[in-house]
Amino acid sequence: MTELLDKINSPQDLHLLSVDELQTLADEIREYITHSVSQTGGHLASNLGIVETTIAMHYVFDFKKDRLLWDVGHQCYAHKILTGRKDLATKLRQPNGISGFPDPEESQYDIFKVGHAGTSIASALGMALGAQLNKTDEKIVALIGDASIVNGTSFEALNNLGLVKRQMLIVLNDNSMAIDITQGAIAKFLAKVRLSHTYEDLRKTTDNILEHLPVIGKKMEGALRSFKKTLRMAISPSRLFESLNVPYFGPVDGHDIGSLIDLFKAMAELDRPAILHIYTKKGKGFTPADNDPRKFHSTGPFKINGQQAKTEKTFTNAFGDILVELAEKDERIIAITAAMPDGTGLVKFRDRFEDRYYDFGIAESAAVDIAAGLAKQGKRPIVCIYSTFLQRGFDHIFQEVALQNSPVIFCIDRAGLVGSDGPTHHGMMDIGFLRMLPNMILTAPASQAELKAALTFALAAESPVAIRYPKDTLPNSEIENATAKKPFEPAKSLTIKHGTAPVAIVALGPTLAQARKAEKQLAAEGIEPTVINARFAKPIDKKIIDLLSENISIITLEDHRLACGFGAAILELDAMQNHGNNAPKQARIITLGAKDAFIKADRRSAQLEEIAITEQRIVETVKNVINRY
Amino acid sequence: MTELLDKINSPQDLHLLSVDELQTLADEIREYITHSVSQTGGHLASNLGIVETTIAMHYVFDFKKDRLLWDVGHQCYAHKILTGRKDLATKLRQPNGISGFPDPEESQYDIFKVGHAGTSIASALGMALGAQLNKTDEKIVALIGDASIVNGTSFEALNNLGLVKRQMLIVLNDNSMAIDITQGAIAKFLAKVRLSHTYEDLRKTTDNILEHLPVIGKKMEGALRSFKKTLRMAISPSRLFESLNVPYFGPVDGHDIGSLIDLFKAMAELDRPAILHIYTKKGKGFTPADNDPRKFHSTGPFKINGQQAKTEKTFTNAFGDILVELAEKDERIIAITAAMPDGTGLVKFRDRFEDRYYDFGIAESAAVDIAAGLAKQGKRPIVCIYSTFLQRGFDHIFQEVALQNSPVIFCIDRAGLVGSDGPTHHGMMDIGFLRMLPNMILTAPASQAELKAALTFALAAESPVAIRYPKDTLPNSEIENATAKKPFEPAKSLTIKHGTAPVAIVALGPTLAQARKAEKQLAAEGIEPTVINARFAKPIDKKIIDLLSENISIITLEDHRLACGFGAAILELDAMQNHGNNAPKQARIITLGAKDAFIKADRRSAQLEEIAITEQRIVETVKNVINRY
Repeated sequence: MTELLDKINSPQDLHLLSVDELQTLADEIREYITHSVSQTGGHLASNLGIVETTIAMHYVFDFKKDRLLWDVGHQCYAHKILTGRKDLATKLRQPNGISGFPDPEESQYDIFKVGHAGTSIASALGMALGAQLNKTDEKIVALIGDASIVNGTSFEALNNLGLVKRQMLIVLNDNSMAIDITQGAIAKFLAKVRLSHTYEDLRKTTDNILEHLPVIGKKMEGALRSFKKTLRMAISPSRLFESLNVPYFGPVDGHDIGSLIDLFKAMAELDRPAILHIYTKKGKGFTPADNDPRKFHSTGPFKINGQQAKTEKTFTNAFGDILVELAEKDERIIAITAAMPDGTGLVKFRDRFEDRYYDFGIAESAAVDIAAGLAKQGKRPIVCIYSTFLQRGFDHIFQEVALQNSPVIFCIDRAGLVGSDGPTHHGMMDIGFLRMLPNMILTAPASQAELKAALTFALAAESPVAIRYPKDTLPNSEIENATAKKPFEPAKSLTIKHGTAPVAIVALGPTLAQARKAEKQLAAEGIEPTVINARFAKPIDKKIIDLLSENISIITLEDHRLACGFGAAILELDAMQNHGNNAPKQARIITLGAKDAFIKADRRSAQLEEIAITEQRIVETVKNVINRY
Repeated sequence: MTELLDKINSPQDLHLLSVDELQTLADEIREYITHSVSQTGGHLASNLGIVETTIAMHYVFDFKKDRLLWDVGHQCYAHKILTGRKDLATKLRQPNGISGFPDPEESQYDIFKVGHAGTSIASALGMALGAQLNKTDEKIVALIGDASIVNGTSFEALNNLGLVKRQMLIVLNDNSMAIDITQGAIAKFLAKVRLSHTYEDLRKTTDNILEHLPVIGKKMEGALRSFKKTLRMAISPSRLFESLNVPYFGPVDGHDIGSLIDLFKAMAELDRPAILHIYTKKGKGFTPADNDPRKFHSTGPFKINGQQAKTEKTFTNAFGDILVELAEKDERIIAITAAMPDGTGLVKFRDRFEDRYYDFGIAESAAVDIAAGLAKQGKRPIVCIYSTFLQRGFDHIFQEVALQNSPVIFCIDRAGLVGSDGPTHHGMMDIGFLRMLPNMILTAPASQAELKAALTFALAAESPVAIRYPKDTLPNSEIENATAKKPFEPAKSLTIKHGTAPVAIVALGPTLAQARKAEKQLAAEGIEPTVINARFAKPIDKKIIDLLSENISIITLEDHRLACGFGAAILELDAMQNHGNNAPKQARIITLGAKDAFIKADRRSAQLEEIAITEQRIVETVKNVINRY
């Protein structure tokens, strides 16, 4: 059923429909999104919840001229559908398709490419200051969820909101399902407010706001004062924002398009920043997502009955199992996440060791420092944060962990290319920012066996250890067996095969799989390179560098940017070791990995091809090297 | 006068004195600190303000067992004096001396090496969770100032404080002098509270707290409720913390040792985290600092009459002048700082262009995002943040700036070694974390002339540009003249001297000064290396790499860690350009810069020597290279 949706080719077309029809349109869009995501995979629950709000925003504002900033951005599907990007079903998150996040390269309706949380208020604040200086009158709207508003960057921006002396609307989309889902005091507070408000209260609040606004010409303070006077709530979320001096309105029903339209119209005329607090329901309209929004937060393709495809065992699954196993014997283990218990494989741990598990919400910076505090108390905190989000904790890893030489363990999931989430989510910089830190040990296991060995090693170490692994399935049993060899020690690589050719393929982490495939293809042609599993990106095994003096060339493989990466570490060590040696040398270091560019959404395998980590490219490189000897 | 201080060799000795004597001791310590800092330079104003609080904390708690965490940490001098480190006057911030920040290697009384702001609550929270799990009863105290509590990390930690079900005391040291000094809504709010409170009010609050505490055995909630009931304040800062569900007590007088002792004793017995809000006066007791705390925030040696030594013109001064000059002609220029208008040289700009200047407080993350928003509005934001603090904005530079290819300009002061502030403050990683970012251009001017050229170039660019320069004086006029040559363009180095020897010294930024000195010394011995001013760390001039095929070796110089640094960028480019070429080559790349270690406080010149950036080391390296040809 897309009868009404068929008529909508741009936000302007919304004005062709009545409010009742808009409400029906919302249901059609929800159905359409569910169908699309079932084909392509993507974020579902959050997108289903925000449809009415999206429609109402586009009805009131003209986002060709006005500015809409999304926080995180994975909830922008309805927005994409309304702004000329209806072909989600075939194109969402596909190569040359439609990104799962806002993207100004796709549409003038998108302002920032985003994917990380907590940035929308600060970015909007900057745009509002710009408009203030430019004396332009575009409306600026930031849409942020209750999970993102607790992020430190959001808070820093709210604290500076007083600099804005013009319109700027923050829509707080509160879709927390229960107290235990979003973490922290603010979440608990909002949940308490939510539980204390009936549908009737929401209706009454809406009426109250509308009664005191529009206030064209009327001073904001006066309007706010009179609004507050008529509003008596037992628990008011306004307290939260009052000390920050941010005018606050709400909470109101985020599924009532008619009211939302009226509210947005009124609030668009305010001459100061303000927050409108709306309640929405994650997963609305699709029963399986409604029942289990977490499962359908981010999903692969699924059947419309809610059945998701079974997947092979991943590094994430393996990590979750290994951690539980190790924690049974080691009471020092504390698991830490920043709002990603599922994605980082910690659900099993949480269920088994509730009192040794902490989710600090989207607060990567504090999570790292808290871990450092735990380490000072003799604990072994395991910080489980995606590579891309760990960038938020860089300075804290520097100061509270590396500088203290604290034994904090970082288990870095989504290290390397992540497939369809695209450029905001790839973990292409962790080797670089971590190996600049003295005391840090950085390992990249190639298999489940090595992941366990790495964790076991890390737990015995008295220094910080980072373990990086990709969003990928585990390698085959042959690689599992080949990599199970001990000891697993810093600066010790594992030679998988001694070859006869004057070239060694040195693989970091799971790129070993591609190395072995290449090795086999080459063997069939009688070429036998040496194959080495580097195991550590810091410290590097000096044995690898020694190959050069035997006139053996080195080809490094990494699922990371070449700049500052593993290959660069090999180059640096070579420069340091061999700079005294001016004997002419023929052997070269060739580094394969990601060049200096952002990599778009695609299948992970296609992305690996793009960064030269494929059997074929390795085979070619080996042959080129050999031919030149 | 150190009559009483002479008796104090450890915190335990404080119990030998009466409260009146402790108050006198505070004055002695202040005098002693002022004298010490006048000899060595250091942080003054903040240290003078916190003496009584430090004495009272050490009187009540036993920080051999209990744990005291400092935020930022530059206010720890009285703490150092009381904990067996009296020889500040000769040793503060000196090589093998006493760090200007807490340092566990110096004393068991120090827990974390710190220097960056906003981390103490999170670290203390981690230690409290650790104690909770360990079931140990040490008291945990975090001391944080009003400028640090607005940092995002502080907020993230406060939001998670509910996880702690045991004692943990946060002392909020509120020494803001006026509304306009600390930035943001919270600062304004605290200032309003401060202005509304008389000394009498503070006294009354203290009595009220003491009346309702100690509460040994009594439940926290009950105590708090009855405390609040008897407390009626027109403007209460408790609102600020209420929504975060953090029990709050105060404000009280932070210079009244007797009351502080009673308060700490009472609050030590609470079974939950709590905040004690104290008022102190920055610069207390030393008139010049009292009158101008900003000037004496961080100072070089000075005369006791308050006269500071004149210094030569620095890169910071030059930047400040150039920016004002450019801003006269370019209205798009907006200057942004994160609580460092003096240190980043923006005072002149602020005074001249008040409406184009923003200080967002210690909020580096938000500052970067706000700048990105301004850039989207056609502005040219100049983000002025020290290299080490910019680490806080790494992820925001990645997402909001590099990924959007937004023309935000980063003017990175304190890039490289910073001298006596030591390891928390060196900027040894900016080249690494910035050059991993696609779209980013990274330049390091060697002189005032180049700094202006770099800024001029950046303003014309449509990409993000980062400009790094050290905490140092400008080079001599010869270098100024040699580097004034145009054009100043990405990937274009400047050959300063064409030599005849098979070696080129390639200097990044102000290391050119050492390169030229070495060149002259070598010339006297008839050795003539080529000298190149690299200008850009990204993109690298390919001409530099081409020297290798002429069999000319390259020696790179950088004031940065070798890992991921400028030399590494040269190595990477060589690997990429020359990997097809297996012709034996004799020419080598030798990288000089900082090894994988933290560098202690010392004179900057001594630190440069430590990382091999000296005339002598360069001369030796050139000779070694040549001898091996």
